[in-house]
Amino acid sequence: MDIIDDAVNSLLRYDNYIMTTHINPDGDALGSLTGLGLALFNMGKNVVMIMPHSIPAAFQFLPGARQIKKVVDHLAGFDMAIAVDCTDLNRIGEGVREVFCRTENIANIDHHISNRFFGNINVVDPKAAATGEIIADLLQKAGISIAPDIATCLYTALVSDTGSFKQQNTTAKSLRTAAFLLDRGAQHRVIQRNLYEQKSLESLHLLASGLESLSLNESGTIAWMSITRKSLKDSGASVEDTEGMINYVKSLKGVEVGILFKEATNGEINVSFRSNDYLNVNQLAAYFGGGGHERAAGCIISGEIKEVEYLVLQKTEEKLYDQYCGRAIR
Amino acid sequence: MDIIDDAVNSLLRYDNYIMTTHINPDGDALGSLTGLGLALFNMGKNVVMIMPHSIPAAFQFLPGARQIKKVVDHLAGFDMAIAVDCTDLNRIGEGVREVFCRTENIANIDHHISNRFFGNINVVDPKAAATGEIIADLLQKAGISIAPDIATCLYTALVSDTGSFKQQNTTAKSLRTAAFLLDRGAQHRVIQRNLYEQKSLESLHLLASGLESLSLNESGTIAWMSITRKSLKDSGASVEDTEGMINYVKSLKGVEVGILFKEATNGEINVSFRSNDYLNVNQLAAYFGGGGHERAAGCIISGEIKEVEYLVLQKTEEKLYDQYCGRAIR
Repeated sequence: MDIIDDAVNSLLRYDNYIMTTHINPDGDALGSLTGLGLALFNMGKNVVMIMPHSIPAAFQFLPGARQIKKVVDHLAGFDMAIAVDCTDLNRIGEGVREVFCRTENIANIDHHISNRFFGNINVVDPKAAATGEIIADLLQKAGISIAPDIATCLYTALVSDTGSFKQQNTTAKSLRTAAFLLDRGAQHRVIQRNLYEQKSLESLHLLASGLESLSLNESGTIAWMSITRKSLKDSGASVEDTEGMINYVKSLKGVEVGILFKEATNGEINVSFRSNDYLNVNQLAAYFGGGGHERAAGCIISGEIKEVEYLVLQKTEEKLYDQYCGRAIR
Repeated sequence: MDIIDDAVNSLLRYDNYIMTTHINPDGDALGSLTGLGLALFNMGKNVVMIMPHSIPAAFQFLPGARQIKKVVDHLAGFDMAIAVDCTDLNRIGEGVREVFCRTENIANIDHHISNRFFGNINVVDPKAAATGEIIADLLQKAGISIAPDIATCLYTALVSDTGSFKQQNTTAKSLRTAAFLLDRGAQHRVIQRNLYEQKSLESLHLLASGLESLSLNESGTIAWMSITRKSLKDSGASVEDTEGMINYVKSLKGVEVGILFKEATNGEINVSFRSNDYLNVNQLAAYFGGGGHERAAGCIISGEIKEVEYLVLQKTEEKLYDQYCGRAIR
């Protein structure tokens, strides 16, 4: 049985659709929303796409992005509500959730393993690298022609959620779907430029200063980087430019925990933790009043940056020692 | 006519092969060398793989890497000499070149547009993203089974030369070849870890110093970065650690040409060029006696780094002006 084959007919039989994706939308969320939205539109359906949050600059180039509305102007009259890339209805913006609850047919198209199967139709495939991959499959199986604009949206979804096919979720199927989308006219160059080549000189100068501060503990298992108020000011970059810098910290050979210290204007220190294979950084962050996931967490600590670094590093060494000695690793 | 179909039989009919790739080998060079080398070996051929230069740490994991020899211990007795990813015989190490010249049959498998067709058999396809893509095709068309080790070598070649499918040379065919190689057992996670997550603290400190030097011309269309002997020494990094730094240069918003200047120990300056959309940097590099592709090329210039920077930037401005004004762009 193929979940997609089953869903195709029940998904595409209506005339009036409302669609949304999760709040704080990323590339898979927006690429999937616009990709499926434009496909339904091209089929002659009425489609309202909603995203109450603002669309990150990197994804504003997406065909269909301008057709996404912030608020719903009518609550009823939809035959079907489709949520893409959403684990559950709590990840949908408040105003939209109301419309979803009033609509008889809810379709839930997603690839998260934690999906709650909240739809009448649930097309959930955790093996798919991106929700965009599922939608490409669905349109193909429905025999719907994929116009270049749609291909661009879905390719963006795939590239975003696989880190350009670097991440472990990348499968042969993801790559074949990407090839198919290029054949259908996905604008590879436009996507790359918007996703990866819009850096400012200031942000790269800030990265330089961050990398300069990069340090390792004696055993080479903990690495950390500090972004001070001074380095922000000297580079002329903004706090948003620190996005992704933690990845450099954990790309070091042999490192288990990467830590990023960011000095905020109010004197507090934002601390981000990432671990590669075994340390539960959620517990570590919780010790300092923060939280997150096992491999990615954070907390906020008041104090001088050097003091906070000392405190956090000491605790990290301790946790690492406890956990490392507690079980056999690698 | 398909150049690969024609070449298959004449390439695979012999018993004793010597193989090499270009000096200062990269991932495509080494992945192609070991991929084809192991395939011939699995067919029961005698294969000697030669690379006089040392193999960068990132590629030492390649299956077959340990079988690569530094020097040839016998000059004669080879039925065929194969060069992979080499534009011409000058890109082959000196000792190896002698053997090539003594061997009756030379095969030249490459994807560089500047290839000199120096073989008796030339399998040259500038549309291929990597030489590894051509070799995967060749083995498939020859009906040779691709073992997981060979798939890992060829996947590494493809990923290296496309920047994990980010670069413009990425085609639907590249992605399909990658999918095929994953199906054949290419070790995605192992490749990723070795290529992208084995950074040394020294290399990231060198990157810091490179990013600090990052500059833009007045119009913001040319960006450049310089790696001096001093920054290499201060960071404790090696020349190999400059690999990939050029991508930071061309990731700046609005930049058409990215240039990386590297000061070599012998006082020569290695210059790498990348262009984003329209400048033919192959021509630019050729002006200085170098070459490469339209969007990626390089040359070596003698002189003080500041002088060379001035010279190259002036010429780049000129070419950019000529080409920009010569045709309507964007």
